[in-house]
Amino acid sequence: MKLYDLELSGNCYKVRLFAALANIPLDVVPVDFLGGEHKRPPLIALNPWGELPILVDGERVLRDSQAILVHLAGTYGGAAWWPSAPHLQAEIVQWLSTAANEIQNGPASARLVDKFGYPLDKPTTLARSAHILPLLDAHLATHDWLALGRPTIADCAVYPYVALAPEGGVELAPYPHILRWIDRVKALPGYLAMPGT
Amino acid sequence: MKLYDLELSGNCYKVRLFAALANIPLDVVPVDFLGGEHKRPPLIALNPWGELPILVDGERVLRDSQAILVHLAGTYGGAAWWPSAPHLQAEIVQWLSTAANEIQNGPASARLVDKFGYPLDKPTTLARSAHILPLLDAHLATHDWLALGRPTIADCAVYPYVALAPEGGVELAPYPHILRWIDRVKALPGYLAMPGT
Repeated sequence: MKLYDLELSGNCYKVRLFAALANIPLDVVPVDFLGGEHKRPPLIALNPWGELPILVDGERVLRDSQAILVHLAGTYGGAAWWPSAPHLQAEIVQWLSTAANEIQNGPASARLVDKFGYPLDKPTTLARSAHILPLLDAHLATHDWLALGRPTIADCAVYPYVALAPEGGVELAPYPHILRWIDRVKALPGYLAMPGT
Repeated sequence: MKLYDLELSGNCYKVRLFAALANIPLDVVPVDFLGGEHKRPPLIALNPWGELPILVDGERVLRDSQAILVHLAGTYGGAAWWPSAPHLQAEIVQWLSTAANEIQNGPASARLVDKFGYPLDKPTTLARSAHILPLLDAHLATHDWLALGRPTIADCAVYPYVALAPEGGVELAPYPHILRWIDRVKALPGYLAMPGT
């Protein structure tokens, strides 16, 4: 099972983190991102969107880090990470949407500006961070984990770009419950760090 | 089962559309959005994010239209709309992420500016629309439906704000495969329209 990967990408890290926590072996293939390898054949045929990560599992090819988490957890990770009951899956999907939208367009995008020089509007990324992080902090004030009262792929999807927020100039000191949740994630058996977390 | 609803919201329409297609009865409760009813008790307790839709199904409360689709389809809609195999769910989740991010921040946000006067950067919403719609069109050039070769909640999540794109000044004429897919969705048994589609 191949993961086309960029070490500094939080979206790729979501997958590496979960695979480490669930003890799923991955063949991690580094991609020459700066050289645009993901925008050319053969990778562009695997993901026409020209983005990373890409997972290739036999005949199956998946773009989108949230979708890859669902596949890995459901197929190899066991029901603890992605249960089979739809109402429990829905509780997790709430956070997959949050990862895809609010976190991606808030702290993850602030980091893209500061660390990689992406031409995004920095004040907008900061405003979106200032919107989502208090909501996340309030949720974590009464919940140890994002969903189901235990670690799930919801945490793996949201954690990377929240933990990396300071790299985009978004400080986490105002959010004590987020900081404690970060510590809980780091204490999970098998936890894998990435530079910046 | 109560859906706290705003008729002109494409996110709420995702849920009403799917419920109509899958013949799931919903008690639709109109919310005084302009009056800020969703920002005050009792609704703010159901969804601290202060957004619509909100689904209340007995003890279960869900925010986020994608999560609501998963719950309704998995619990009441049958495997055609949300299968139980994780690799098939993952194929759908790719498009739930697309709905939550690229579509929400592209055509849906362009419409928020033009139709409701939201203070978003219109050129950015148009640029994001011009990025995602050709990718969607290319996918639909070789697929009748977004995932699994049949109508699923992937289509219900992406369709509303694509069909409503002209209300944000995003014309669909350059995307013939999207236009044909819109026609296929409209021809589904039980299809429910909304103003603007």
